[in-house]
Amino acid sequence: MRIAIVGLGLIGGSIAKALKANTAHTVIGFDRDENVLLDALSLGAIDRIGSTAALREADVVYVCLYPEDAVAFVRDNAAHFRPGCIVTDVCGIKGGVCDRLSALAAAHGFIYVGGHPMAGKERSGFEASEAGLFYNASYIFVPCDAPEAALQTLAGLAEAMGFGTIRYCTQQTHDRMIAYTSQVPHVLACAYVMSPRCAEHNGFSAGSYRDVSRVARINAELWADLFLSNRAELSDELVELIRNIESIREAVDCGDREKIVALLSAAREKKEKFG
Amino acid sequence: MRIAIVGLGLIGGSIAKALKANTAHTVIGFDRDENVLLDALSLGAIDRIGSTAALREADVVYVCLYPEDAVAFVRDNAAHFRPGCIVTDVCGIKGGVCDRLSALAAAHGFIYVGGHPMAGKERSGFEASEAGLFYNASYIFVPCDAPEAALQTLAGLAEAMGFGTIRYCTQQTHDRMIAYTSQVPHVLACAYVMSPRCAEHNGFSAGSYRDVSRVARINAELWADLFLSNRAELSDELVELIRNIESIREAVDCGDREKIVALLSAAREKKEKFG
Repeated sequence: MRIAIVGLGLIGGSIAKALKANTAHTVIGFDRDENVLLDALSLGAIDRIGSTAALREADVVYVCLYPEDAVAFVRDNAAHFRPGCIVTDVCGIKGGVCDRLSALAAAHGFIYVGGHPMAGKERSGFEASEAGLFYNASYIFVPCDAPEAALQTLAGLAEAMGFGTIRYCTQQTHDRMIAYTSQVPHVLACAYVMSPRCAEHNGFSAGSYRDVSRVARINAELWADLFLSNRAELSDELVELIRNIESIREAVDCGDREKIVALLSAAREKKEKFG
Repeated sequence: MRIAIVGLGLIGGSIAKALKANTAHTVIGFDRDENVLLDALSLGAIDRIGSTAALREADVVYVCLYPEDAVAFVRDNAAHFRPGCIVTDVCGIKGGVCDRLSALAAAHGFIYVGGHPMAGKERSGFEASEAGLFYNASYIFVPCDAPEAALQTLAGLAEAMGFGTIRYCTQQTHDRMIAYTSQVPHVLACAYVMSPRCAEHNGFSAGSYRDVSRVARINAELWADLFLSNRAELSDELVELIRNIESIREAVDCGDREKIVALLSAAREKKEKFG
């Protein structure tokens, strides 16, 4: 297959490297930064640099851009995808993306599948990308109206890239779950380091400080957009979290040992049961 | 030196193993579980099993018990420590411990130093203990009224065990900092897994879910006591955290992108500056 990758940042670059390392497909790279394209070419992460002509020949297109840019790219190039071409994005929130890209696909005769490869690291850009980024990670697909064969093609590529789990769900389920598993920890990490005690933590902290604060090294612009694409779900989940912190705080404040033990024991049981 | 270790759980067992692995001192073990004592002896983690007579000969005593048990042990054995013997505990909160043990030391002529080796893991007990547990960790001492020579003895032993940082502070500073660096992350982990979404996280989660939820595998009885020994500081720090989460939530809820970017950028700067 001829596979186009648009945007060779951390995710796009890692997809390119993983496909080149594990498959015989032709990988065509697109990026607004020419130096990144030349680096990718010389490192063997792509077979060639993309063009509109190359886009017309692509069997699969991974659009690895920020949400608004991804929608704009597909809109501007909708006429260039051949009929039956599979276009997929990697946006962390599917609301505002899946619906618009599905509509473009229906209007122009290509196939669209929403995708979210669940991997990342604190650094970004092509330099940070690596063929092994996805090892054993989860790839979530929002099928929209794509035919089964297209889903199988993407699943096969995901397996080749090293993903360990493939999940299918609706856009709504995706965004509700991601509010919890990914967005809340990012809000938390930022809220946690806002304490005046953060400046003095050195020598008083160990693994639990490090783990909670890790993702405070955040890409503020990207995450502001992701939060705003999922306002209601994220706000609801934060209300839930605040309520649960408050119930423990209240038990501590009242000195209600029995209540504290009950709350912590219930939490431990859930962690042991669900991992 | 003759070093007595009272309580061969995760911390006491690791201190015993680290001292045996890295020093030539004689290590004498005390535990209410005879099987643990026999295991420790056969593994070479201790040189011999303790007795009241052995306690009288000890130069240093590490009391590695839960806070109330630690105070009770020192009170019941205060008459057995020889003059100048250095007694230290490993309790995670110093309020209610340092003051009582300092008073016993003054009354009976031994030396007391509050101690907090900042290391742990999700499993407990002697089986989980290991000589390398403290590698590069921080050991906090609350000097109370101990002479400089006693502090130097304990610092030397800590370095031999592998600790990378040694901090001295008052009981008040210790408890305020620990509320932030250790107790808040434990409350958070428990509050986080209380969400109904926890049961469905599988396939939707990656590193940030894992990091925030890790310490929800909590020892409920121990942590209830630690929380209650530090009620005011912990409650204040939770109020601070809730306020900071709420300010991000409000900005999300209102769709105030500029405010979100400002809050996240400030958090990122703090994380980069203070680690």
